Amino acid sequence: MTLEQKVLAKNDQLAQENRRWLAERGIVALNLTSSPGAGKTTLLERTIRECPGMPIAVIEGDQETLLDARRIESTGCPVVQINTGAGCHLDAQMTRGALESLDPARESVVLIENVGNLVCPALFDLGERAKVVIVSVTEGTDKPLKYPHMFAAAGLVLINKIDLLPYVDFDLDTCTRYVRAINSGVEVFPVSATTGAGLADWYDWLSEQRGPIAAAPIEVHLSRD
Amino acid sequence: MTLEQKVLAKNDQLAQENRRWLAERGIVALNLTSSPGAGKTTLLERTIRECPGMPIAVIEGDQETLLDARRIESTGCPVVQINTGAGCHLDAQMTRGALESLDPARESVVLIENVGNLVCPALFDLGERAKVVIVSVTEGTDKPLKYPHMFAAAGLVLINKIDLLPYVDFDLDTCTRYVRAINSGVEVFPVSATTGAGLADWYDWLSEQRGPIAAAPIEVHLSRD
Repeated sequence: MTLEQKVLAKNDQLAQENRRWLAERGIVALNLTSSPGAGKTTLLERTIRECPGMPIAVIEGDQETLLDARRIESTGCPVVQINTGAGCHLDAQMTRGALESLDPARESVVLIENVGNLVCPALFDLGERAKVVIVSVTEGTDKPLKYPHMFAAAGLVLINKIDLLPYVDFDLDTCTRYVRAINSGVEVFPVSATTGAGLADWYDWLSEQRGPIAAAPIEVHLSRD
Repeated sequence: MTLEQKVLAKNDQLAQENRRWLAERGIVALNLTSSPGAGKTTLLERTIRECPGMPIAVIEGDQETLLDARRIESTGCPVVQINTGAGCHLDAQMTRGALESLDPARESVVLIENVGNLVCPALFDLGERAKVVIVSVTEGTDKPLKYPHMFAAAGLVLINKIDLLPYVDFDLDTCTRYVRAINSGVEVFPVSATTGAGLADWYDWLSEQRGPIAAAPIEVHLSRD
């Protein structure tokens, strides 16, 4: 077993403990991953405002600053910030510490905003029900092919910033086809966290995760070679 | 010494060997880093086209695909693609292999496009003269504060996609102030690789790197805690 495999195996074990901890409380946790600046925090702010009936708590991951936690705090939502320093992703142990400090309500939804990085967070299970991968139209159509591990790990893909489509060279259908080439069953929702376009699909998906039908975690198979 | 320190120390040693290899040939290598989709390949394509008098060769880094190498190849420029698989950054050893395969001309410029990742490539010296960090206006004003290690390691910062400024919430002056708060002496050029705006500054900077005045590598101090 290589050192990387050992680190991942240890993380997987802690993630399973998080999964049990969450299940005992009926809490659904989702792990939001993307490139830096793809709009994760804006999506969270809008989701919190537009889903007042849904009890939401947030874990914010960043290398440095409390900027995102402050943005979430100003919505009135409970939030804990994790600063990873030089670290490039959240892991299951950091997540457990944040969950205990956050102490989210039973039957609530915990949205975990990972460090902006389309590579490393793909390998680290936090105990979430699913990874929600956000890619923005300004990043280019080819991103699913160039960063396949993240898209293979996705339980849902949001293509964000569709309000900028008139100004950039991006093909929504081709990008969706690329995502499905890597992860055939995954749902893909084009959205704009800035204008609100398409977000009804995301809110419906979020609500479905809380239903009894979603009691088992979505299976994702990561290649770790 | 932690394992991470050992890995970095070994990489630093190989990077110094690359630096000697390049210096013996009078070659200037630059390490281009950014988030996925910040416009590195478009910048390279335009730079190659608009600097016909400058001998350029390219090393392309991506997790998967030959897409970027093919784009560079179609300009007629020598190019080698490195696929990192699950890996999140280029390292000095991969770079050395690519340099030997590329066999760039004496006195030429080697532009190394790193894997799109604003985190991990900050720590890995490839033997380059400088890291050129590219951040795009669609990523948001706060990125230098949230990913400080990369901006601390920068020898030059390009703020790209300024053609999209009318459509996004981004403040050029504030972002530049944030960059300088982390890296006080660094030059910051606002550019658009799509329209060509501001690129004369980049071309001038690139030419200066080839002059005798730039014979010593730019010193960058990385925090590795």
